[in-house]
Amino acid sequence: MTVPERLRVTYEVAPEDVAATVEAVRVEQTIEFPHDLAPQWVQEDVVGRVEEVDGRRVTLSYDARVLDAEGGLTQLLNVVWGNVSLMERVRVVAIDPPRGLLEQLPGPRFGLDGVRELVGAGQRPLLMTALKPMGTSTEVLAGQAALLAEAGIDIVKDDHGLANQPWSPWHERVARCAEAVREANDRTGRRALYAPSLNVPLDRAVDYAHEAKDQGAGALLVMPGLSSFELLRVLAADSSLRLPLIAHPSALGSLTVNPDHGLEPGLVHGLLNRLAGADLCVFVNHGGRFGTTPEQSVRTRDECLRPLGPVARSMPVPGGGMSIDRVGALIGMYGVDAAFLVGGALHRGDLRENAEALRRAVDQNLATRTGATP
Amino acid sequence: MTVPERLRVTYEVAPEDVAATVEAVRVEQTIEFPHDLAPQWVQEDVVGRVEEVDGRRVTLSYDARVLDAEGGLTQLLNVVWGNVSLMERVRVVAIDPPRGLLEQLPGPRFGLDGVRELVGAGQRPLLMTALKPMGTSTEVLAGQAALLAEAGIDIVKDDHGLANQPWSPWHERVARCAEAVREANDRTGRRALYAPSLNVPLDRAVDYAHEAKDQGAGALLVMPGLSSFELLRVLAADSSLRLPLIAHPSALGSLTVNPDHGLEPGLVHGLLNRLAGADLCVFVNHGGRFGTTPEQSVRTRDECLRPLGPVARSMPVPGGGMSIDRVGALIGMYGVDAAFLVGGALHRGDLRENAEALRRAVDQNLATRTGATP
Repeated sequence: MTVPERLRVTYEVAPEDVAATVEAVRVEQTIEFPHDLAPQWVQEDVVGRVEEVDGRRVTLSYDARVLDAEGGLTQLLNVVWGNVSLMERVRVVAIDPPRGLLEQLPGPRFGLDGVRELVGAGQRPLLMTALKPMGTSTEVLAGQAALLAEAGIDIVKDDHGLANQPWSPWHERVARCAEAVREANDRTGRRALYAPSLNVPLDRAVDYAHEAKDQGAGALLVMPGLSSFELLRVLAADSSLRLPLIAHPSALGSLTVNPDHGLEPGLVHGLLNRLAGADLCVFVNHGGRFGTTPEQSVRTRDECLRPLGPVARSMPVPGGGMSIDRVGALIGMYGVDAAFLVGGALHRGDLRENAEALRRAVDQNLATRTGATP
Repeated sequence: MTVPERLRVTYEVAPEDVAATVEAVRVEQTIEFPHDLAPQWVQEDVVGRVEEVDGRRVTLSYDARVLDAEGGLTQLLNVVWGNVSLMERVRVVAIDPPRGLLEQLPGPRFGLDGVRELVGAGQRPLLMTALKPMGTSTEVLAGQAALLAEAGIDIVKDDHGLANQPWSPWHERVARCAEAVREANDRTGRRALYAPSLNVPLDRAVDYAHEAKDQGAGALLVMPGLSSFELLRVLAADSSLRLPLIAHPSALGSLTVNPDHGLEPGLVHGLLNRLAGADLCVFVNHGGRFGTTPEQSVRTRDECLRPLGPVARSMPVPGGGMSIDRVGALIGMYGVDAAFLVGGALHRGDLRENAEALRRAVDQNLATRTGATP
């Protein structure tokens, strides 16, 4: 569909009382006030409008003026899901942001194509992995980072739980790991990126992001479930920062895991992250150690890639209990427009050999295909 | 219990496979790495420890060093609920933060006693209401604010959906409503507070908070579900701001509504808000328009009030579909150590008369009781 002028949100509600729930939602999300007491024009212009009812699925639309005039995402989240989150059995299954908002948002600065170009990858999926486990010293983590970059991993990120712990303090780790990846790139001629975790106090996040860049980090890992989608947007809009942003799903399962409450995973891990400016969107792939369906994975991919006015595409990053064995299935499903996140599994046996085998598995799989794009 | 040295978290998990789930959780929330491959000392010191198993309830403890050394809350949230949020049928039913963290956090700057003192209330519950509906002009909202302050409401807040919309732009509204409440206070000799909504872009939130203070606002409304718990903490720690913070539950239902997933409502609306520095914690009371139980309301109250090392008590603020009829029941349940949030119901009929009747109902109910504290 073309980009609408109004915000459109499709809710799936309990079948017993669709009409009453819909009335409650469209009022709750806007005026939060007895509907009959509101002036006529407020009832018409400010309260959500019922656009379509299809069984339990109801599409409401909201005047774009109910959103924040300055383009922040707090009021978008609030209209889509604020007080409704406190109601039982309401699920958001589709969101179409209005044109005006899309034009205000920074969007992903690099996007799928920009990230591919940054790491110098041709038409192939990228590979991502994490430095771990917590408790490891900076020296050992930096050694891991170098080794993984040499082995052909494109993006080496901190495990998202690596914050500022005594075993590897944040500033020390970022400086050393960035240096290690830079030196590895000098040896290989490749352009791997190191992405530190911005699991840091919110008031220091922007400063730490700049420090990371100054130290040579090539990307940043942000957890919107811990730090807000707004932090992503602020970093994406920062024209003196200019680093690709990787969104990690920590704590976002609150929004997605319950089948009759929350939001479809694709809307959270794909659409909201993308609107907030994530260049790469990590999400839980089906078949890993978390329970999601193939349909949900496809939807997340699609929300990363679908046309969305001026907003660049994000790169989908399926992860969560992934292993080398699944490379063929991943390429079959995602084609080349994705990054595959393989974590702990690389550490069983020799890390370098496993990472090289992963890269080789991708290259060989692609070589045997023609037209791998889905 | 006394404040523990380690972070203690009690999870309730699916009964089918308690042992396996617990193993997954304690590893997932720390090293996110094959347990057997981690060095022995990491298995012992960094991975979560099983403290107690009682049927489906399992208490784990985590070394305080896994948290952020600088006292940010992102890593606390991550350890308690980060990747676990992506698993089905895991619920957090108790959290006991470690002493070290409690000593680092600013906590509520005013707390229950400080807020009571600010508004000049003796031993009675406070009254709070919201300016609404969206679409109303600043002039009319300022008139509402004056009238409500005159009628004896202690805290007049923006409806949380009032962001920066054309009908009442943020800066204009804050200046005019703060002025209106100040003038009303001059007339009455009381000390009502006006609390604007910080439903604003994250990068401007601190500046807007200071602007609100400069304009004469007496408190601030913050939505941690939209802007992060960290924003509360940052504002609470700001020694040049010094305004009471009201936490609103918008979007937090994602964490609390599903009985076998997420966190107990009291931990979110009470404990986490309090740790983050909220002086007043708005939550959905049972019997209103959202589905919660009396036990959940009591638990939220208790998490606001229980001893927590050096962290001040927060004022519980039951709300959500409240009305004047329920004042007796509210006082019976919460005593005087609470603020009652009554919203839209005040607008049916004459707003001033209703607000005065609300205040009178509280005063009369208290007069007929002895020893109203629960």
